[in-house]
Amino acid sequence: METLKEFELSKEFLDRFRLALEEKDDEFVINSLEGVNPADITALLFEFNTEESKYVFDLLEPDVDADILIELDEDIREDFIAKFTSTEIASFVDEMESDDGADILMQLPLKKREEVIAHLENEEKATHILELMRYDEDVAGGLMAKEFIKAQMNWNVRQCIEQIRKQAENVEKIFSVYVVDEQDRLAGKVSLKQIILANDDMKVADVFDDEIIAVETYVEGRDVALMMQKYDLEAIPVVNARGKLVGRITIDDIVDVITEIAEEERALMAGISSDVEEDDSVWALSKARLPWLIIGMVGGLIAAQITDLFSADIRIIAGLALFIPLIMATGGNVGIQSSSLVVQSLATKSAFEDSMTSRLLKVLLVATVNGVILGIMVFGAVILIFRDQPLASTVAIALFSVVLLASFMGTITPLLLDKFGVNPALASGPFITTANDLLGLAVYFSVAHVLYSLG
Amino acid sequence: METLKEFELSKEFLDRFRLALEEKDDEFVINSLEGVNPADITALLFEFNTEESKYVFDLLEPDVDADILIELDEDIREDFIAKFTSTEIASFVDEMESDDGADILMQLPLKKREEVIAHLENEEKATHILELMRYDEDVAGGLMAKEFIKAQMNWNVRQCIEQIRKQAENVEKIFSVYVVDEQDRLAGKVSLKQIILANDDMKVADVFDDEIIAVETYVEGRDVALMMQKYDLEAIPVVNARGKLVGRITIDDIVDVITEIAEEERALMAGISSDVEEDDSVWALSKARLPWLIIGMVGGLIAAQITDLFSADIRIIAGLALFIPLIMATGGNVGIQSSSLVVQSLATKSAFEDSMTSRLLKVLLVATVNGVILGIMVFGAVILIFRDQPLASTVAIALFSVVLLASFMGTITPLLLDKFGVNPALASGPFITTANDLLGLAVYFSVAHVLYSLG
Repeated sequence: METLKEFELSKEFLDRFRLALEEKDDEFVINSLEGVNPADITALLFEFNTEESKYVFDLLEPDVDADILIELDEDIREDFIAKFTSTEIASFVDEMESDDGADILMQLPLKKREEVIAHLENEEKATHILELMRYDEDVAGGLMAKEFIKAQMNWNVRQCIEQIRKQAENVEKIFSVYVVDEQDRLAGKVSLKQIILANDDMKVADVFDDEIIAVETYVEGRDVALMMQKYDLEAIPVVNARGKLVGRITIDDIVDVITEIAEEERALMAGISSDVEEDDSVWALSKARLPWLIIGMVGGLIAAQITDLFSADIRIIAGLALFIPLIMATGGNVGIQSSSLVVQSLATKSAFEDSMTSRLLKVLLVATVNGVILGIMVFGAVILIFRDQPLASTVAIALFSVVLLASFMGTITPLLLDKFGVNPALASGPFITTANDLLGLAVYFSVAHVLYSLG
Repeated sequence: METLKEFELSKEFLDRFRLALEEKDDEFVINSLEGVNPADITALLFEFNTEESKYVFDLLEPDVDADILIELDEDIREDFIAKFTSTEIASFVDEMESDDGADILMQLPLKKREEVIAHLENEEKATHILELMRYDEDVAGGLMAKEFIKAQMNWNVRQCIEQIRKQAENVEKIFSVYVVDEQDRLAGKVSLKQIILANDDMKVADVFDDEIIAVETYVEGRDVALMMQKYDLEAIPVVNARGKLVGRITIDDIVDVITEIAEEERALMAGISSDVEEDDSVWALSKARLPWLIIGMVGGLIAAQITDLFSADIRIIAGLALFIPLIMATGGNVGIQSSSLVVQSLATKSAFEDSMTSRLLKVLLVATVNGVILGIMVFGAVILIFRDQPLASTVAIALFSVVLLASFMGTITPLLLDKFGVNPALASGPFITTANDLLGLAVYFSVAHVLYSLG
């Protein structure tokens, strides 16, 4: 067992490797990377600049290079791949499965893309890649690979095995052989386990499993993920509108989709645009954060104007200004709680959706419970600390109203966003939170205005 | 192809099914669920109460019941399973793989757990389950199943196939045969593809792949997920401290781990305790949200007292109160941005960690860029709108300081939490946000106090 644990990137090895690159000690580079998993080499190259990485690349075999390219982050890859000629890129793509090849080609400028395709040695792969490039990258058609094992219904098991042997080099991971009818429509599958256990002379028609779950090319990645997760699948066949088998999506690609969705959602909730990471440049990080901070600032300026409108009230009612933070923070917290509950239930999609009305009714019920409890607590606290009964009533009533309002807004916003095809997680982000803050502030001052005018 | 798409739960079918339950039309229930994927039956039962579900359960075969139990949400399952006798539960567990069986048993009260184990027909499974129950549920040992195919190094391929045949019923999904040496230590694997392509008389020692990635029993689920994702694995063998092969984790369980981690993180960020969902009871939802709202409220009350401390300043400096929302909102936004960047990079774990100093230096640099830009903008805006230069300076300087401070706090908090074994996502939640709010407020008033006393 050579690599029981992950390849350990020690500080010592890194220093030694850096030295080897400086001294152009090719032998050390080649020997030290011999047999190392490409995913680990990728992590290593991450510590070097593109020039140095290119140097290492040129010393490795094209199939290892291909695997490294697939592993690279998209933005790093875009810069890196620009260093290679079209012929070099074609030699890497020749070693990849079609879906990875298509991803790489999509990152190239149009002219270079055409050149690479022209240089591909494997013509079938070129055709496959061209077909895959037609699909959006986040639907089943864009996620699938053209490499899979297909068997005719009238074959016997021996013919399946022959087909596996023929395709073994092209299809890295085989879980099942997909069975098609005369029109090439997906009819079922035979798992490798079944093939091993079956007699070689058995007919595919007699051993295949006709209960097979497939997706059509246009299904969104998120839904493919839900489906594979629900049915515990390691691969799912993709069919076109006529039921013809056109590709296969494997679980490793879907795990990446799930991770990306979670990261995107976190970024939206935190108010960070585009997918920056902590190790990006200072300027990239600043740029990704600034738009949302500016939205928050504009909100703050509007809040200042709303407060200014009520400046007379603030002067008259001693203590009114003191509870601005409390009202705003509670509104924000309630809003985020509500929207993230909706986002979660949208993400898991239960079979039957509750009607909008019953959903809102429940939300308002929860808000009433929480609003009443918080209202009573804050009433008591203000009386205790500030000994001011009218102020305590104002804060309590305003708080109750804000909890109700923020619950309503926090529930309805993600539902509306989702309806219009926008990621509902945006509703937990700074844009909506800012809007909620302003509403809360306006409610607070209005309640005070009314209560004190009457009382 | 019977189930090309998911089993569609139509409103009509649901109504018909409900009627069948009322009329005890067992035939309809049995026929309509014949051949339906247990995951779909689970979704259907979700629409019925435990009594009704139990009724359906009693009509289905134990192996289908077992699959449904595995699919159920843990909290629903806990209530549901209480309806069954120990013998019934044992008959379901007998149909499960050991990891699922152990999960179910862990949910039972101790006495019932012992009874179920005593009633298990499959003694080997009982031993396996008892072994698995020793592990925490979120480490490799708790995630693994005891069902896998093991071959001796000195076997030939035919013997592997024999072993697969023998175990076929116990091991639902087979991807590889794991190869062990005489001491039962993991030495490598042979994929099913290799077995199909190899000659039956070939020695395992000659065909097996000795570059195999394994995890030890104590490795955390989160790290197993990262590893399987990095190396695109569909299964990973688990070894004990002596390298002995003790179990196997499949990707479907890891996909669940990944999803749970993301959900937990979202709940922490949104300030919702425990894992509630939109369809839980009003009281459960209120209870899950209340603690965080109360923390926010207490923060708001402290904010009121801080503001009260500076009430003389507020009276003297016209307009000081107006910008309380702006300062607090910006502090909150910056803090969440910073912490979620850290959380993200902790989740993906690059090979080399930057030192704390260089990390903070970079964070402060980004904060300076953003703080200067925001400061200048707000200075201009306040001059324009309120025509008050000292106030504009105060707000701008305070805003700049708050951006710096919130960045610092937002970065250091998740790092510290992580160091002490607490989920760092908590740093983006209401507790830390509230603390940041208070700090920001204090900074704002202090800046004003100093600036106006001096100017």
